Amino acid sequence: MSQQQSEERIKQLEEEVASLKNQLQNQQQKVIREKISVISSEVKDDNPYSRLMALSSMGIVKNYEKIREFTVAVVGLGGVGAVVCEMLTRCGIGKLILFDFDIVSLANMNRLFFTPDQVGMTKVDASKETLSKINPDVVFETCSYNITSLDNFDTFMNTINTGNLLTNGKVDLVLSCVDNFEARVAINRACNELNIRWMESGVSEDAVSGHIQFMVPGLTACYECAPPLVVASGVKQVKREGVCAASLPTTMGITAGLLVQSVLKYLLRFGKISYYLGYSAINDYFPTMKVRPNPQCSNPMCLKRQTEIAKLKEEGLLDLDLDEEDKEQADEKKIVHTENEWGIEIVADEVEDIDIHSHAHRHEDLSHGLEYQYEHHNKKVDEKELVNVENQDLDELMKQLNESMM
Amino acid sequence: MSQQQSEERIKQLEEEVASLKNQLQNQQQKVIREKISVISSEVKDDNPYSRLMALSSMGIVKNYEKIREFTVAVVGLGGVGAVVCEMLTRCGIGKLILFDFDIVSLANMNRLFFTPDQVGMTKVDASKETLSKINPDVVFETCSYNITSLDNFDTFMNTINTGNLLTNGKVDLVLSCVDNFEARVAINRACNELNIRWMESGVSEDAVSGHIQFMVPGLTACYECAPPLVVASGVKQVKREGVCAASLPTTMGITAGLLVQSVLKYLLRFGKISYYLGYSAINDYFPTMKVRPNPQCSNPMCLKRQTEIAKLKEEGLLDLDLDEEDKEQADEKKIVHTENEWGIEIVADEVEDIDIHSHAHRHEDLSHGLEYQYEHHNKKVDEKELVNVENQDLDELMKQLNESMM
Repeated sequence: MSQQQSEERIKQLEEEVASLKNQLQNQQQKVIREKISVISSEVKDDNPYSRLMALSSMGIVKNYEKIREFTVAVVGLGGVGAVVCEMLTRCGIGKLILFDFDIVSLANMNRLFFTPDQVGMTKVDASKETLSKINPDVVFETCSYNITSLDNFDTFMNTINTGNLLTNGKVDLVLSCVDNFEARVAINRACNELNIRWMESGVSEDAVSGHIQFMVPGLTACYECAPPLVVASGVKQVKREGVCAASLPTTMGITAGLLVQSVLKYLLRFGKISYYLGYSAINDYFPTMKVRPNPQCSNPMCLKRQTEIAKLKEEGLLDLDLDEEDKEQADEKKIVHTENEWGIEIVADEVEDIDIHSHAHRHEDLSHGLEYQYEHHNKKVDEKELVNVENQDLDELMKQLNESMM
Repeated sequence: MSQQQSEERIKQLEEEVASLKNQLQNQQQKVIREKISVISSEVKDDNPYSRLMALSSMGIVKNYEKIREFTVAVVGLGGVGAVVCEMLTRCGIGKLILFDFDIVSLANMNRLFFTPDQVGMTKVDASKETLSKINPDVVFETCSYNITSLDNFDTFMNTINTGNLLTNGKVDLVLSCVDNFEARVAINRACNELNIRWMESGVSEDAVSGHIQFMVPGLTACYECAPPLVVASGVKQVKREGVCAASLPTTMGITAGLLVQSVLKYLLRFGKISYYLGYSAINDYFPTMKVRPNPQCSNPMCLKRQTEIAKLKEEGLLDLDLDEEDKEQADEKKIVHTENEWGIEIVADEVEDIDIHSHAHRHEDLSHGLEYQYEHHNKKVDEKELVNVENQDLDELMKQLNESMM
């Protein structure tokens, strides 16, 4: 196709898109709720925010309405990501940036959110359609491309670096709801590079375990500091080549719920955020953990962030601190409510604290129920490739790394 | 624009056109998927069961397709119940009986499931509409009445006693997703009377904790054996008269997920079911517990079921056994996978085992983070009223019992 032909084709397609959008709008002229400019705590049947604003009157959150100021990017709209978006939309988040390049199919119907009439639509279009109907106050931006391909990675970086609703700067948080290793490494690199905090999530191929992890560049282990931690299912795997991964709306809904709960706790500043929280459905087991960064991490931006965090900590300018958390917890164990007749108070369970000093992470260093997804010292990874973020030759690198991981 | 960029733009636009055309077609024709007579494990994009049937190939569940044989009654279609129904529908449950007498309002939009275009519809109608579109293979029966009123209680009993899809007998399980004490007592009485196993769920008024509880008449404590157990939020309550309860899609979605996960584990016989599982969002704390029945329970049908269970146990005919669970757990701690290089295996956390011998349940008998919703010995309840199931004068009784409980 010549350049001129291409341009004509683009013009033609753009016209067709406009026309189809018009038709759709006409079709959809059903009643949709009006936008609400200022959210109120008034207790009325027609106030979609009354039960959220009640979090403030209940003393849980100081200013719930601040939720409207935040921008969150969600990468991956599968069984976890789509539910994460629905929860954040219903909570009244300011802006959501949705990333996915997949199409809705009937095989997705075993998880929450998508419906059979959306089969064939892109996941971002289908999500935006449903979510804007649920809450027209939220601003949506959709990106239908694979973030791991060479060209798109730059666009992805640029989008999360400039997509903030209020500042046109960095988004407030990136959520990883993807099902593969390459995409997680891409998010890790972008967030280390741009110094953006992010949360990781994952569900096992046997559908009975999941985890979430809060990643603060330089403060916690990054995705390349150590092999990924997963919750052992405790069930003997009958893995066969070519067998498709199982999934359940329960495990994925729970993982999405735990992830968004952490997002709310972080953005609205209440409760304690688990840096790692696992879930095993087989035994209802929920291990928590803190994983410190590896001073020999192969990602140079991680090392740079580690130095910056150490400096901020020295200057007392850090808003989060793994050690501070310990102190708070120790203090809290001593607190007894004066109005509580029996002196009962929730105290956190023991939190595993992992300090990574070398690449040879062994399963036996971990608490029960957790395991590394692979042994670091067994991996044949070209360290130079892993180190070089600027190089960004993700495709090739990922081919080497791609395991049967979700 | 370079040639490569043009080509990408064309590709992107073509996809958008296809997606929009699909949306339009769906809007016009309201395509609904056809019923599927036999579920298959074939890995195809148009098979809505492939990722569920994969649970069998993964070795988690023996016969996933058995799910179609079960009938579950769900009482209450709020932030927990509606999500429970969506999960069970997507899992392909045989039949759902839905109970609720409420109307969808905008104030419900902060939880998953209902959409603004359903405002004004009864919750049972709106649910059936959405759920049959999601999975037309499931059989739905809707009951739009308050189960606690005198007339309706009999109808409710009759419905769960004869609603089974396969046998026209008892349903396989009743799920309590209600937000008040009266309805829970009504479910408890019906299930003790009919000897039907049920699961209780609840979310706190401050939106940051929840719990699920598996009730097996005669084997576990019934809802009247002891004051209800709730998870303390660990946050100082600023309770004011007339303030509406707070709720979050996260806490409710997690509670729904944990409940349906227990349902699947029970019906499809995999994993271990927690008899009581709590969740506190503030600290990501998940206490588990077993509560034994009270030999002085005020509900006579509970006492009758306790005698029956003791007899069945003696004869070795009981399919569930609180003590057997302990033995299994002890055995399992010794198991080391032969193919697991580091010998790591999930073991269950310590499970609190509560034996109720008297009515004077005190907070100090409980593990941290849990508390009774009230002190049993402080309640002024006419024991004769509580005892008499046949009397069924629930309305009056409930007026006495109704606390600010969810």
